[in-house]
Amino acid sequence: MKISCDRLREAAAAILTGVGVDTDEADVVADSLVAANMRGFHSHGVKYLGMMTKRINEKMLNISTRPELLNESKAISLVDGKNGLGQVAAVLAMKQSIKQAKAFGIAATFVRNTNNIGFLSYYTMMAAKADMIGICACNAASSISLWGGTEPVLGSNPISLAFPAQDPLVMDLSVSNVARGKIREADRLNEVIPDSWAFGPDGKPTTDPAEALKGTLMPIGGPKGVGLAIAVDLLAGMVSGSKYSKEVKTFHKLLGETGVGAFFIAIDPADIIDPALFKRLLNEYVVNIKGSDGESVFLPGEIEHKNEIKSQKDGIELDQNAIDTLNEMLQTVHSDIKL
Amino acid sequence: MKISCDRLREAAAAILTGVGVDTDEADVVADSLVAANMRGFHSHGVKYLGMMTKRINEKMLNISTRPELLNESKAISLVDGKNGLGQVAAVLAMKQSIKQAKAFGIAATFVRNTNNIGFLSYYTMMAAKADMIGICACNAASSISLWGGTEPVLGSNPISLAFPAQDPLVMDLSVSNVARGKIREADRLNEVIPDSWAFGPDGKPTTDPAEALKGTLMPIGGPKGVGLAIAVDLLAGMVSGSKYSKEVKTFHKLLGETGVGAFFIAIDPADIIDPALFKRLLNEYVVNIKGSDGESVFLPGEIEHKNEIKSQKDGIELDQNAIDTLNEMLQTVHSDIKL
Repeated sequence: MKISCDRLREAAAAILTGVGVDTDEADVVADSLVAANMRGFHSHGVKYLGMMTKRINEKMLNISTRPELLNESKAISLVDGKNGLGQVAAVLAMKQSIKQAKAFGIAATFVRNTNNIGFLSYYTMMAAKADMIGICACNAASSISLWGGTEPVLGSNPISLAFPAQDPLVMDLSVSNVARGKIREADRLNEVIPDSWAFGPDGKPTTDPAEALKGTLMPIGGPKGVGLAIAVDLLAGMVSGSKYSKEVKTFHKLLGETGVGAFFIAIDPADIIDPALFKRLLNEYVVNIKGSDGESVFLPGEIEHKNEIKSQKDGIELDQNAIDTLNEMLQTVHSDIKL
Repeated sequence: MKISCDRLREAAAAILTGVGVDTDEADVVADSLVAANMRGFHSHGVKYLGMMTKRINEKMLNISTRPELLNESKAISLVDGKNGLGQVAAVLAMKQSIKQAKAFGIAATFVRNTNNIGFLSYYTMMAAKADMIGICACNAASSISLWGGTEPVLGSNPISLAFPAQDPLVMDLSVSNVARGKIREADRLNEVIPDSWAFGPDGKPTTDPAEALKGTLMPIGGPKGVGLAIAVDLLAGMVSGSKYSKEVKTFHKLLGETGVGAFFIAIDPADIIDPALFKRLLNEYVVNIKGSDGESVFLPGEIEHKNEIKSQKDGIELDQNAIDTLNEMLQTVHSDIKL
């Protein structure tokens, strides 16, 4: 069934306020979750409300979040996420970086002690909409080993970049070849997986999803992906004063605070390149780089942008199971909204 | 034969001053080239002197470089590389970023109109030695297509990061699974290559190095590597006012100015984390992250660091062919040095 974006946002916010989240913070989270659904990142969409409300009810995630800006005078800032809603801390951090980049040309804001922040291009696109370049990354629970090893010590630590083309040019990637969710799905369907997805517990590539789930994810480019995972872990986790490596806990099980860290960089290149020229060159770039490959290839973020436009027009397709789950949550919090 | 690092540096500098490079700039380039050999990056070492001197003699590379710092007041700066020696522009740029990061917490310097800058961790380690985090990247001649395409439109755009652990934790990666040189080598030896290295001209993975050389390199993580290649191309090439995408020319053929662009970021986290604590945590990290995998795994930069120490002690192993080539160059410029 198709649900309009506004309706879904309203429902998500109602579920959050229903468990005690203040309206302003509920609106931020609902907007981020529905934006994920709109762009086709269903695994990062309203599905998260289930675990989010569970964590809130278990007092394992603090509301309201009211993240604190601890260091804000220079081009480098720090936000304490107060073990609250990741999206709320992340939006504050990217706003701070955009503000400071306006003054200094480049600025970074580090976030400590937060939780899952949703899909990362939500934040980098904030910078792109302000005619800046946005960069962000966060760490995550361990799923990757050092190259040649067997012990998961690093998350698949996602990274995003966005550039202010007319239709934002947006990269959104994790440093593993695939997400663990794809392996879980193959396991459920009893399917064989490509040997580029994961290692079994013996550290050897495997095509058996059950073995893969006991092992580690394969990093992009082998040791190169491991290097990127470490770099993100140190910047997002260690520099921010958050958890890192094996100390970061998954959001998906009630094992305690996740301790996620993140960082958000905004670059305002206006002192170096005229903003109108930059925009024009970017708009030419997205056309020219397709070259002779034309319509057979896609730019980073292009499919997601098309999904977003389509979702805005036609609504978001959710299966009956997803709708039932949302309606149950709405009922539990005595909301008068029903999808 | 083993050549001492000092001797090799002296020879490299003599070859460069012999073709007209000023002593100070020759020393910078010689130090960077020999550092590459010391760390085991022989493809980025003194081997480059051949093409460098050819380009200088052909007036395709300007000496002395005297790169110009065009914008230096804020946390974002610009260097005009004057189509000169890449290492000279790059060292100036990283020094500027380190200086500005000291004042602002984070700083970026963009370099336009330069040439091959050698191995990238040379610069990020400058930041690490100043107790900062260094990040740099540059673009390169096209070898990668958009995902699913066949036309090379992006370089394998290398990226480096370095962290101030006692033995610097250094990432140095390009966004293709392997360098084209490895495919050329397989072609020369008439060997089959793994199907994860390259696509043939039809855009399909190939195990034939000859087909691969007519095609494109495989990006790390498929579309993820393409996204990283575009991000580096835009930051290093477009923002800096340099060439980008297909306009960047290879250094290895005399086809004209390369038009390479680069960027150098330094982050001084001292306002956020006490420098002594940061160093201690980093030193603990490099031990703890090996966990149960122990000595069977290596951290990014670890093998290179060991190579460097060994080279410093025992000298650098060069084959007779390499030594003969260097001696010929020394003779051509009437140097009294002979390896």
